[in-house]
Amino acid sequence: MARTNARLIRFGIFALVLVFCGYILTKGSSNSYNLSKSTTVSPEAQSSAETTAPAAPEKKETTKVFSNSGSKEKATFVSLARNQDLWELVGSIRQIEDRFNSKFHYDWVFLNDGEFSEEFKKVTSEVCSGTTKYGQIPKEQWSFPSWIDTEKAAQVREEMKKNKIIYGDSISYRHMCRYESGFFFRHPLLEEYEYYWRVEPGIKIYCDVDYDVFKFMKDNKKSYGWTISLPEYKETIPTLWKTTKDFLKENSQYVADKNLMDWISDDDGGSYNGCHFWSNFEVGSLEFWRSDAYMKYFEFLDKAGGFFYERWGDAPIHSIAVALFMPREEVHFFDDIGYFHNPFHNCPIDEAVREKNKCMCAPKDDFSFHSYSCTSKFYDIMGLQKPTGWEKYVQ
Amino acid sequence: MARTNARLIRFGIFALVLVFCGYILTKGSSNSYNLSKSTTVSPEAQSSAETTAPAAPEKKETTKVFSNSGSKEKATFVSLARNQDLWELVGSIRQIEDRFNSKFHYDWVFLNDGEFSEEFKKVTSEVCSGTTKYGQIPKEQWSFPSWIDTEKAAQVREEMKKNKIIYGDSISYRHMCRYESGFFFRHPLLEEYEYYWRVEPGIKIYCDVDYDVFKFMKDNKKSYGWTISLPEYKETIPTLWKTTKDFLKENSQYVADKNLMDWISDDDGGSYNGCHFWSNFEVGSLEFWRSDAYMKYFEFLDKAGGFFYERWGDAPIHSIAVALFMPREEVHFFDDIGYFHNPFHNCPIDEAVREKNKCMCAPKDDFSFHSYSCTSKFYDIMGLQKPTGWEKYVQ
Repeated sequence: MARTNARLIRFGIFALVLVFCGYILTKGSSNSYNLSKSTTVSPEAQSSAETTAPAAPEKKETTKVFSNSGSKEKATFVSLARNQDLWELVGSIRQIEDRFNSKFHYDWVFLNDGEFSEEFKKVTSEVCSGTTKYGQIPKEQWSFPSWIDTEKAAQVREEMKKNKIIYGDSISYRHMCRYESGFFFRHPLLEEYEYYWRVEPGIKIYCDVDYDVFKFMKDNKKSYGWTISLPEYKETIPTLWKTTKDFLKENSQYVADKNLMDWISDDDGGSYNGCHFWSNFEVGSLEFWRSDAYMKYFEFLDKAGGFFYERWGDAPIHSIAVALFMPREEVHFFDDIGYFHNPFHNCPIDEAVREKNKCMCAPKDDFSFHSYSCTSKFYDIMGLQKPTGWEKYVQ
Repeated sequence: MARTNARLIRFGIFALVLVFCGYILTKGSSNSYNLSKSTTVSPEAQSSAETTAPAAPEKKETTKVFSNSGSKEKATFVSLARNQDLWELVGSIRQIEDRFNSKFHYDWVFLNDGEFSEEFKKVTSEVCSGTTKYGQIPKEQWSFPSWIDTEKAAQVREEMKKNKIIYGDSISYRHMCRYESGFFFRHPLLEEYEYYWRVEPGIKIYCDVDYDVFKFMKDNKKSYGWTISLPEYKETIPTLWKTTKDFLKENSQYVADKNLMDWISDDDGGSYNGCHFWSNFEVGSLEFWRSDAYMKYFEFLDKAGGFFYERWGDAPIHSIAVALFMPREEVHFFDDIGYFHNPFHNCPIDEAVREKNKCMCAPKDDFSFHSYSCTSKFYDIMGLQKPTGWEKYVQ
């Protein structure tokens, strides 16, 4: 009788050990992911998971959801790079890993018009905490299309070289702009993903990002996120706007109701003011680029030849498409990440943001509210509350 | 009877629960410190915890102990900075935190000849994971000593300005060199510490450092650690060596038996070859600077006036003292940290080291084995095995 009791008790306590230790182990792992900060949700968000704004007093305080719970999004980092970019890119990867990805381990897709060296693959796979994938760009997506008069294109490059237009005489830069404009999101390696974060060599991320940026995009119905905006050099896009208007004549159905036309044009669409999101940083929805609207727009621009007869950049093209085809509520300015790409800094001027995220940047360097930037205009059009003291940074 | 049995068993199993969970908890915590890497000890070390070398074949393979167990050392980071250095210094702090201190949380002492601003204290205390302390340098340690002829000193600065000697005309640079040479280790805020790691604004740490560097210094009986070495500009120290020899005439008892004289002199002490450890990076023992040998040496140099009548730097002074007064086995070259201070890089050329520590630097930039560096000479004198392929980096 005593034996049976004892056996029962032993069994009971053993189960207890398992449960208790299981509890401790899981407790440990979640700590190591440092979710304590990242799951903090703003008061508004606690009261409602809605992403739409409550009745605004004068300036609206958008309610946002910051969540790391549940599974990862179908998202990846994507970098267009050549073997010689390796070490500058490794610097960028470490920035992203230190500030964000070491907590989330998202994949990284590397694309190259040439073949990646074994060293490139070895080193990048070592520093990325997620899975790394390496893709080569098909020749036809990185060369002159059949309909381009290469003679004429060569003359343009000569001309631009004389006029000292940056990258004006570069062929590869033009292939790059065309690829980023119309092809990267169609690469087989990106097929499985919904969101991407574009990263270039030599960039810096200034602040800790403790929330899942991709989940943030999805939860808040955002389709395009950016950090720096400025006007484009008009000499590189003489006919881009005319070509865009020609496209719109036939395809007005693609224009979103509440769009950002006012941000890219100061005369109601008559002319382009050059404002664009600096596309060396992009967190966006791949679906948007794969949509009929954008695919047709790109085909139309590509046929017009401006990538080679002028020097159209992917930044103004992405930005015009986002401004016209995307509901403006889906466009998000990241005011909490902090970003540097030579020569411009995005450094949160809100001290509370810098403090919470340990931003390692000097607010005086922030370009967002500089008179040359288009970011202040974005705040105005979106009816967003500018951070206090922004006037000090206009210059 | 059954009851007593059961009670006894319950008690026994309960003890078991405590032991078992205690075991898991300690296991958990050490994981979060990522000891997996840092505790790996070389085969020799496993067989013996000794830090001395086994009988060497031709080149000795020093056995080192890497341990994070037990309590923290009495150690701190120390930075001499002005308020205007804030953001460049924050960049350095983040480098140290990301690569090392986020795992160990050592303190940070900031010293300033002026008063630290509230902003400086607020921002630095936010980005440091250890306790931060702020000290002001006493006026008498940052001004001309009574015995200095300021007229003569002014003439020297004029002369050096004409001859374009770097910092040749700067007064504050001279106060800085004098302070780093003879006073920082005596500041009350440093009294409680045994070891320090000197950090300057604008530096980079290229590799993950997963072991406790200070514990490494203690366990391996190291008193001075460095990353970059090079020859000093002779124009800044015309009489430093003569003054040193005058000191040694009276104080030969301070010279260590197995010293590094051969590293700083190519003619057996006749002249100084200028080789010095670049002191903007230092991990060292404070006791050494506080020793009679060094204190008397500094007093002697200070009285000679070379800080002001010439432009003696703290680097050659620290280096000469280390080379002469410290047993050379206590001098350690960090070949696994990776360091940058404009314009020189220390980037481990051993691929296995870069891989293990995720070093974000290009080996081709490494200065260690460059013909202008004195590091190769250090390997030779210490009888250390150079990394394979070092010849490729001589240039």
